[in-house]
Amino acid sequence: MKLELPIRYGMVGGGLTGKIGAIHRAAARLHGHFRLDAGAFSSDPGIAHASASALGVASERSYESYQKMAESEAAREDGIEAVVIVTPNHLHAGPCKAFLEAGMHIICDKPLTSTLADAERLHDAVSQSDRIFMLTHCYTGYPLVREARHRIQAGEIGRIRLVHVEYPQGWAAGPIERSGLKFAEWRADPERSGMGGCVADIGTHAFHLARFVSGLQVEEISAQLTSFVEHRMLDDDVQVLMRFENGGRGILWTSQVAWAQENGLSFRVFGDRGSLEWSHVDPNRLCHANEKQEHCVITRAGPAASPRSARLSLSPAGHPEGYVEAFATLYTETATAIRAMRNSRKRPKGLEFPGIDDGLEGMKFIHACIDSSAANGQWTRLN
Amino acid sequence: MKLELPIRYGMVGGGLTGKIGAIHRAAARLHGHFRLDAGAFSSDPGIAHASASALGVASERSYESYQKMAESEAAREDGIEAVVIVTPNHLHAGPCKAFLEAGMHIICDKPLTSTLADAERLHDAVSQSDRIFMLTHCYTGYPLVREARHRIQAGEIGRIRLVHVEYPQGWAAGPIERSGLKFAEWRADPERSGMGGCVADIGTHAFHLARFVSGLQVEEISAQLTSFVEHRMLDDDVQVLMRFENGGRGILWTSQVAWAQENGLSFRVFGDRGSLEWSHVDPNRLCHANEKQEHCVITRAGPAASPRSARLSLSPAGHPEGYVEAFATLYTETATAIRAMRNSRKRPKGLEFPGIDDGLEGMKFIHACIDSSAANGQWTRLN
Amino acid sequence: MKLELPIRYGMVGGGLTGKIGAIHRAAARLHGHFRLDAGAFSSDPGIAHASASALGVASERSYESYQKMAESEAAREDGIEAVVIVTPNHLHAGPCKAFLEAGMHIICDKPLTSTLADAERLHDAVSQSDRIFMLTHCYTGYPLVREARHRIQAGEIGRIRLVHVEYPQGWAAGPIERSGLKFAEWRADPERSGMGGCVADIGTHAFHLARFVSGLQVEEISAQLTSFVEHRMLDDDVQVLMRFENGGRGILWTSQVAWAQENGLSFRVFGDRGSLEWSHVDPNRLCHANEKQEHCVITRAGPAASPRSARLSLSPAGHPEGYVEAFATLYTETATAIRAMRNSRKRPKGLEFPGIDDGLEGMKFIHACIDSSAANGQWTRLN
Amino acid sequence: MKLELPIRYGMVGGGLTGKIGAIHRAAARLHGHFRLDAGAFSSDPGIAHASASALGVASERSYESYQKMAESEAAREDGIEAVVIVTPNHLHAGPCKAFLEAGMHIICDKPLTSTLADAERLHDAVSQSDRIFMLTHCYTGYPLVREARHRIQAGEIGRIRLVHVEYPQGWAAGPIERSGLKFAEWRADPERSGMGGCVADIGTHAFHLARFVSGLQVEEISAQLTSFVEHRMLDDDVQVLMRFENGGRGILWTSQVAWAQENGLSFRVFGDRGSLEWSHVDPNRLCHANEKQEHCVITRAGPAASPRSARLSLSPAGHPEGYVEAFATLYTETATAIRAMRNSRKRPKGLEFPGIDDGLEGMKFIHACIDSSAANGQWTRLN
Repeated sequence: MKLELPIRYGMVGGGLTGKIGAIHRAAARLHGHFRLDAGAFSSDPGIAHASASALGVASERSYESYQKMAESEAAREDGIEAVVIVTPNHLHAGPCKAFLEAGMHIICDKPLTSTLADAERLHDAVSQSDRIFMLTHCYTGYPLVREARHRIQAGEIGRIRLVHVEYPQGWAAGPIERSGLKFAEWRADPERSGMGGCVADIGTHAFHLARFVSGLQVEEISAQLTSFVEHRMLDDDVQVLMRFENGGRGILWTSQVAWAQENGLSFRVFGDRGSLEWSHVDPNRLCHANEKQEHCVITRAGPAASPRSARLSLSPAGHPEGYVEAFATLYTETATAIRAMRNSRKRPKGLEFPGIDDGLEGMKFIHACIDSSAANGQWTRLN
Repeated sequence: MKLELPIRYGMVGGGLTGKIGAIHRAAARLHGHFRLDAGAFSSDPGIAHASASALGVASERSYESYQKMAESEAAREDGIEAVVIVTPNHLHAGPCKAFLEAGMHIICDKPLTSTLADAERLHDAVSQSDRIFMLTHCYTGYPLVREARHRIQAGEIGRIRLVHVEYPQGWAAGPIERSGLKFAEWRADPERSGMGGCVADIGTHAFHLARFVSGLQVEEISAQLTSFVEHRMLDDDVQVLMRFENGGRGILWTSQVAWAQENGLSFRVFGDRGSLEWSHVDPNRLCHANEKQEHCVITRAGPAASPRSARLSLSPAGHPEGYVEAFATLYTETATAIRAMRNSRKRPKGLEFPGIDDGLEGMKFIHACIDSSAANGQWTRLN
Repeated sequence: MKLELPIRYGMVGGGLTGKIGAIHRAAARLHGHFRLDAGAFSSDPGIAHASASALGVASERSYESYQKMAESEAAREDGIEAVVIVTPNHLHAGPCKAFLEAGMHIICDKPLTSTLADAERLHDAVSQSDRIFMLTHCYTGYPLVREARHRIQAGEIGRIRLVHVEYPQGWAAGPIERSGLKFAEWRADPERSGMGGCVADIGTHAFHLARFVSGLQVEEISAQLTSFVEHRMLDDDVQVLMRFENGGRGILWTSQVAWAQENGLSFRVFGDRGSLEWSHVDPNRLCHANEKQEHCVITRAGPAASPRSARLSLSPAGHPEGYVEAFATLYTETATAIRAMRNSRKRPKGLEFPGIDDGLEGMKFIHACIDSSAANGQWTRLN
Repeated sequence: MKLELPIRYGMVGGGLTGKIGAIHRAAARLHGHFRLDAGAFSSDPGIAHASASALGVASERSYESYQKMAESEAAREDGIEAVVIVTPNHLHAGPCKAFLEAGMHIICDKPLTSTLADAERLHDAVSQSDRIFMLTHCYTGYPLVREARHRIQAGEIGRIRLVHVEYPQGWAAGPIERSGLKFAEWRADPERSGMGGCVADIGTHAFHLARFVSGLQVEEISAQLTSFVEHRMLDDDVQVLMRFENGGRGILWTSQVAWAQENGLSFRVFGDRGSLEWSHVDPNRLCHANEKQEHCVITRAGPAASPRSARLSLSPAGHPEGYVEAFATLYTETATAIRAMRNSRKRPKGLEFPGIDDGLEGMKFIHACIDSSAANGQWTRLN
């Protein structure tokens, strides 16, 4: 038991008028591994400085641009070690590269960028650096998502045949982007969001979850993207058939017009000797149909959970955990990786949290979906 | 309250060595509207007569062929009024036509036939007759399936955008057709089952349910059919994207290799003002997300159920009903229609139970799926 | 496979203006083991004869009194073998004895009688006869209730510590007995119902279920009976603590003022090595927490169900069964017992369905609850 | 948006070898309202200082006794403002009084003390002080528990008739207190835990929840306490009947021998116009049966949730929250109250979090249960 100093970090975006910054900060804070020391919280200087003040960031470390922040923090002895990027999609690539060049580790919101070209350039930059890059596909932080992944890796359900993943939301069932809500506005705008709407915003989460849990590559997809709401420029419903490298088949559905659905991410994986099901609505339970075809429930940190997933828990079994704990697990794993690099310039091996490869793959998924849908569902390779 | 004499009926197939005949007989018997008087229960004369004897059918009305049965029963004053056909798929068309010509009403198991050509011929024959034809898409007999259909007809969830239906089973996850089980054997044999495997056996149920509940035509589909089990000749997993006449989109998934799934038929319909969800696992509850986005539960015959669906119930609210009750509802509605024709030669209007048009449509669905899948998922019209 | 002639039966009560008669008749009919040949369907001759006519009972076998029916049917060569008593509680004992004396087997609705004295006399009469007596504690007919009972008998959950059973309904949350509804009226009237309200009507079901599943005697109880609705003469809410013969403890709760509850019977049994839970809301699933503390689901007729419970099923696993099937199982078991006595005058051993002993025990339970409650919850022995 | 300085706090107990301290610290940290500056983390000086070091507490503020800590911190200009007491029950009263006298606000684990006499003295001390006292009945921090309370206060389900609350755990189904586990050991020891076992450890949570949600006083109770495990000195199963001030009736069940139950706290409240149900297993959903008897689901922060409960959420609707968030809500509300007192010596009015009165009431509940059980379930008043 020795003191591990918290990671000093800064944030780009995430001003107090938005929502997502607060989740990131709470996740960073939950286990005490991070300390917020700097920020360029908004492109509006008033909001930026007010946010800094309310968050306890010293005024000289509240910046009006990310470029200035990268430069100044790099020059300080007590400068930040890591940065969290929570801007709209088109403003990921620039900050990422600036802070990378300034020698900082990166935690970046998904999808990686707004264009595939940006993503490829960023991928190169990260790959050639020795910095940690974490992409917040936060659902992979749930202990029972890990449990499913590990059981599949260990062959517990046999050869994978079917992977079904879905992520329905309903908040965009009406023309919400014309209601003045900022988060809805930029997501609906191709300039800021990129060419994908729902497919980029949450489809990439679902896709990554399918990949993360199954451990299988998706070779090709056939997609049908729809915009149900009049005048909407980007897709709001996404149906994708998938073919996996091992001959497995999958269905991915994600929607932002699924009436009254809040955030219904779920997966089902069927092998030739078992199956696993998990739903974000009830994330503390994983259903396992074993070789005898009995459906058994694995509870988070409960008697059937493996130590490897149980140790990701903060609370004892039976005390529900949720989104912020899952998010915090990614932050904690990132902190561990960053700390390992304080004494070494080599990236640790075997990192389980999502990184730059997952980010590029997500962008390829978006583009394959858009291309396939434009070609009336033609099967399209991801690579 | 006056006595309505039970319908005298006979059965083709359904000998005591099988399973499905017993369900049909129980459904026919439940409300007392049918009386079993004749049968050609098996192509094996020993099984046929033993079954007749055990079922209380007089020996002179236990037949060794359906042709003989049709002829003899037509000649009797107390001959059967209706016949139930529960043979393998390739033996539907012949008996149907024989009994139709003998003037009897038909209750036939699904899918309609084993070939599209047979289906079209049978469709013509039925259409030109004045006999009742009921196809046992039994899931449409559930009171809450009707409730969903009626609410959608009444516009309660607005314009339909998404229709998701699935029907997973797991019994064919291994090479069960080579284990000696008769029901598995004929279903896996193209000669007896037709060109569709899972898509014909249960895919047609799922498709019909989507149509029945939504009230919408499916214009075209894109399908991916897979045979996961080695040496299997027909599909055992079916993924279908659907385009509805009104611009709605749908996903249909059905499988017989979904590990440990028993009979998981379900649907979800999302409109632009509400949604409805129902699962066969818990058929006494229908979930309705209303205009205020509240999820409310409609229980069978409960306070929120309409009189029109509640009157289909045998038991009071809170007393679970299931498969045989749903099946029996179709039998009861058929009995009502047949009785109406005792005094008239005109088929009643507005019959809600599935009929010959649904049977032909199911066959077109099977063939469109097979064609689309063979063409690598090309969008294929049903008509 | 040989023909077993249906049991010829008659019914006392159950006219078409009521509800419960229809359930009994459907249950009797479902497997084809019974045939309705006679009835005294109502104390109102008009209803009695109209019911007989609508039910296909010959007019000369439609009786205006049960005494006449017992006498006449006993005199016929083709007279009924069994009688079903579905009158209000105070009209059970009379018909039971009359038909017993006429040599008929009895199927009687619960609770056994309206007074303990009547129950004791009837118990003596049945015990001294050689006739079958079945009390319709219908919930014991569910295959998974049997599964639970057998697993406990086999020691699968170890020594029983806790038995919780509850049966909430909400239909009497308001003064429904003053609304003109007949079933509500007689249940609220001590003259016809007996001294117990809710405790007699459904408390006896819950108590019997606890006994049936656990296999344990209840030694003493402490009860709190309440009448929440103004002017109501009998209890409408019942809380009971129970002490079992082996030192186990239990809670029984039943209510008819539990707002919006339909028919929520359920039990949970905790042993020192496992537990079992079942709810009538979802009767096709039994939850078993095994020795490793894993919660596994046993589905009706599914892979984990024992053959002994699975063979009670009509439909394959995954096809929901409900109330009428459970009810029908008791009828089928009674038919089997009656048929065994066609060739013998000795009652078969090992009958699993509820009988006269259970009926008397239920009455003792009612009276112990009333006494305990009147004595401010004093612990009261059942015997 | 202005900076609110975190509350400086210290901790008594909660060393790194235990579990509960970590939950408290995470809850305190989640929203950034508290900063850990001092501690007497263990009675073992080695563990105490190692914990301090690992938690980033300066060595001069790591104390070997709470007395020293109270004294020293009171003398510092930057001394702690609040203290968190997470020691075994018999070590609550001493520290509470010492820190109270040192002018600090108190956050104390439940139950309040190990004896009723201690509780009454502590109640007097707190009442006479002007310090904030928060008792961590953490389940009252769940947004939907608040939603239920507020709806009941607003009369939405009418007059309360029935309050059922239960809290089953299974961890003590075997003789775990003799396995060397510290948390199990002290809980089973009357010297450290007090006269109540399960009734004190979690029964007080259940009791307080019933009171908190219903808003009603419990006038008297009848209890049956059992020790199922051989040689166990305190109760491990608790059955309680309750009578509320308004004539309502209740059942409370809590157990630590309920096989395979993890932490199944739940409540159901039935009024004469509606009902509400909530379970800790799925804390993001509250079931409301409304006046029309429809069961509707209120999701945390969802469309049906009131702003008053929704604003307690960190994450958007559909993103599960759990135990640490609920716990953190109590910490946040306490921080708000403490900040309000930075500028005033008057305790704010209308505090919703549990306080000293609830602590004393919980102790009275424990003692009434023990007394009633010893008197064979005699109804016993709480006051």
